[in-house]
Amino acid sequence: MSDAVINHLMDNREAILGRLMALVRQPSVSTDSAYLEGMASARSLLLARLEVAGLEGVRTLVAGGHPAVYGEYCHAPGKPTLLVYGHYDVQPPDPLERWESPPFEPEVRHGRLYGRGVSDDKGPMSIAVETLSAFLAVEGSLPLNVKLLIEGEEEVGSATLADIFETHRELLCADAVLSADGARWRADLPSVTVGCRGDVAMELRLHTARKDLHSGRYGGAVANALHVLSELLASLHTPEGGVAVADFYQGVQKPEPAERARLAAIPFDEAAFIDDLDGVAVGEPGYTTLERLWLRPTLEINGVSGGYSGEGAKTVIPCEASAKLTARLVPGQTPAGVLAAVEAHLRQHCPDGVRLAFLARDGGARAYEMPGEHPLLLATESVLGQVLGKSPIRVKMGSTLPMADVVASTLGIHTVMFSFSTADEDFHAPNEFFRLSALDQGLESWVRLLRLLGEQSAADYAPFRWTIAP
Amino acid sequence: MSDAVINHLMDNREAILGRLMALVRQPSVSTDSAYLEGMASARSLLLARLEVAGLEGVRTLVAGGHPAVYGEYCHAPGKPTLLVYGHYDVQPPDPLERWESPPFEPEVRHGRLYGRGVSDDKGPMSIAVETLSAFLAVEGSLPLNVKLLIEGEEEVGSATLADIFETHRELLCADAVLSADGARWRADLPSVTVGCRGDVAMELRLHTARKDLHSGRYGGAVANALHVLSELLASLHTPEGGVAVADFYQGVQKPEPAERARLAAIPFDEAAFIDDLDGVAVGEPGYTTLERLWLRPTLEINGVSGGYSGEGAKTVIPCEASAKLTARLVPGQTPAGVLAAVEAHLRQHCPDGVRLAFLARDGGARAYEMPGEHPLLLATESVLGQVLGKSPIRVKMGSTLPMADVVASTLGIHTVMFSFSTADEDFHAPNEFFRLSALDQGLESWVRLLRLLGEQSAADYAPFRWTIAP
Repeated sequence: MSDAVINHLMDNREAILGRLMALVRQPSVSTDSAYLEGMASARSLLLARLEVAGLEGVRTLVAGGHPAVYGEYCHAPGKPTLLVYGHYDVQPPDPLERWESPPFEPEVRHGRLYGRGVSDDKGPMSIAVETLSAFLAVEGSLPLNVKLLIEGEEEVGSATLADIFETHRELLCADAVLSADGARWRADLPSVTVGCRGDVAMELRLHTARKDLHSGRYGGAVANALHVLSELLASLHTPEGGVAVADFYQGVQKPEPAERARLAAIPFDEAAFIDDLDGVAVGEPGYTTLERLWLRPTLEINGVSGGYSGEGAKTVIPCEASAKLTARLVPGQTPAGVLAAVEAHLRQHCPDGVRLAFLARDGGARAYEMPGEHPLLLATESVLGQVLGKSPIRVKMGSTLPMADVVASTLGIHTVMFSFSTADEDFHAPNEFFRLSALDQGLESWVRLLRLLGEQSAADYAPFRWTIAP
Repeated sequence: MSDAVINHLMDNREAILGRLMALVRQPSVSTDSAYLEGMASARSLLLARLEVAGLEGVRTLVAGGHPAVYGEYCHAPGKPTLLVYGHYDVQPPDPLERWESPPFEPEVRHGRLYGRGVSDDKGPMSIAVETLSAFLAVEGSLPLNVKLLIEGEEEVGSATLADIFETHRELLCADAVLSADGARWRADLPSVTVGCRGDVAMELRLHTARKDLHSGRYGGAVANALHVLSELLASLHTPEGGVAVADFYQGVQKPEPAERARLAAIPFDEAAFIDDLDGVAVGEPGYTTLERLWLRPTLEINGVSGGYSGEGAKTVIPCEASAKLTARLVPGQTPAGVLAAVEAHLRQHCPDGVRLAFLARDGGARAYEMPGEHPLLLATESVLGQVLGKSPIRVKMGSTLPMADVVASTLGIHTVMFSFSTADEDFHAPNEFFRLSALDQGLESWVRLLRLLGEQSAADYAPFRWTIAP
């Protein structure tokens, strides 16, 4: 059936793509202070866009970190109030030399838009903004109450998002969160995500001497920071691929037989999954690949440095070495518990005399799971079945939406992920892309979902909210 | 007793220091092609200096790599012919941020000259050049025949030095080599070096997938290049500190009891040696620190890279990782044999499916030992006893003078190391320095040594030369 708002969006598709590309041109890398200007210019673009769209109370919300962008339109009494979430910050673009087109010069090739952040999360977040804008342009109102929050710290573990929620608890109070972040699992299989792993980032630094030493003059008699680092890092995993850190798995439940059966029933070609990456299958023994990705925690080395890595050779015994690590958490684990376990393991294995510094990079996020009968989840499934012509299956995701954990513990409400990016779109890697077909699907789906939610009442959400002591 | 040449040198000390500082200002880093201009400007300075000094046949000698600088003065028939050796190339200056004054802006502080290459080998090599220049200025001749060769590839394993010797065998033919490179062991204990370890440099690179992967989306199910690298590097050593590579020690003799006793008699405070570095003592079990440094081979990790090492965190599973390694060799080992053993070990331990590339960085150098009765060695000991007031002890060195091995196998003659740098002068590290007192000692010692060698005859050297088939 024809929908005036959807028609309006399709008529303005070129302008929508143009605005998305303008946003991608702003290098908003939150983890690196060299990009502060790109963060500011992305915010400016968004603030102007929300004003023009007709949202009210447009402003930034700050709690010591990168500001979030906010706007609202709440003129539907008795209807549900939705906190719509997205983020404007992106991952670092390196290694730069492996991009086919520059990361911050978006380019359309073969029906895909390429650029850093197009899929995570500027494309999906723009779908939300454009949908709200189109409703207000065509109908002068929204079918429900919407509060839009676009944060600037998703890629650094949403460091101050909890503080923003706590500082602005009244302003952000809502019945549920609809997230434009949290990629769809696969392009070929409609799905809704009902849970995600948590995460926590850490770094270790070793010092073995007060200066780098000549490998001839000292070699054989003094500790080499890179030898110690290699041994410590190698000690983190068992030869079979599990995590060897004591207490790392503490609190983690073995998956229920019913859940294992449900996962086993999902069409998934393990060999093709690995082959497509030109990868090598490894992992915790006794689990399928999907179980390893969705139900089991991990500990990954994300980067190492130490010694000479320039051209040619340098005969040096490095006196310092460091590594960055992240863990993915499942229900039962806490970021603090995992940090403590890893630190204890490293200290126990660190040779006498070697100086070890261990740093938590952020507060981390717990894993998140949502109740199966939540009205926003049910509405989402209904709309996806309608737009895609096939009922979506319920899946989990291996990556983290820190926001979901923060929302649960600060606002006491649940989060549904309704992003139209797809997990194969190389976010966090070179040549990130976003399918332009997902732009159309997403715009239609968001319009239909807002209309359907407009038929619900705020009271439907009461059983799924809980009170958080201030 | 007063010596006109020594007096001339002391009168010109400021000019000598000025010329050395001008040379240090040329950033002649041989391992990195970004410094080609610095290499060329250092050569130009030296060529001009040798011309002005009155050397003959001044030119560059090239065999495909960085050119060597050459000059000679051979007008003492029947007297020994000395091939005087030094090098003008230096180590890379990084980590730059740890220098107290810029590496290529030499600065005198507290009786020491600071700058990259001042100790290794621009300072000691300048002593040789200035000594020859002073003899020619004061006396119009040298007491023996001298051929001066200043190479440009010592810091990259003297890659084409053998080719230079083979190409210019007649030109470079001599009775022995007197090296201005090969630092003195300690500032407090007069010594002569009668042997050194060899070396060989290598690099390994791993690929585990065709691109970096998101640690949430893929973590737990695919190999991480940095996990594999850590395990491979950790497997190279035993927990006690020996090398765990099969066949690495093949051909290496256990030290003779007599040699162990000689080393044990050398005054050496193991605890102070380690404490001074703020270091951690580790090494092959069953050996003293001096034995580990002089008599035993090593395998060191010099640098690693892989994943993200910028500011903050990046949740990536790196698809590639690499490491640079060098081994120090002792008599009985060959560079090719050690390369083959390490490569075989890595291939054996590399997990199935992971792509391993192994590269030899250069041809390496065997260890070197010189005969105890060599006339140049005896003359050196005599002069040092005279200048320093105390007989030097015979020591070995843990680092490598690739030239000594190359000279032995191409020219069939021996090499005596007569450098006036000291092993604690942070060459190959930030804040390299050269003691100005060593400049004075060195100038006096070189003058006295050349005079003493002028009393020898070429025939004294015949028993210590051997014929190399062309």
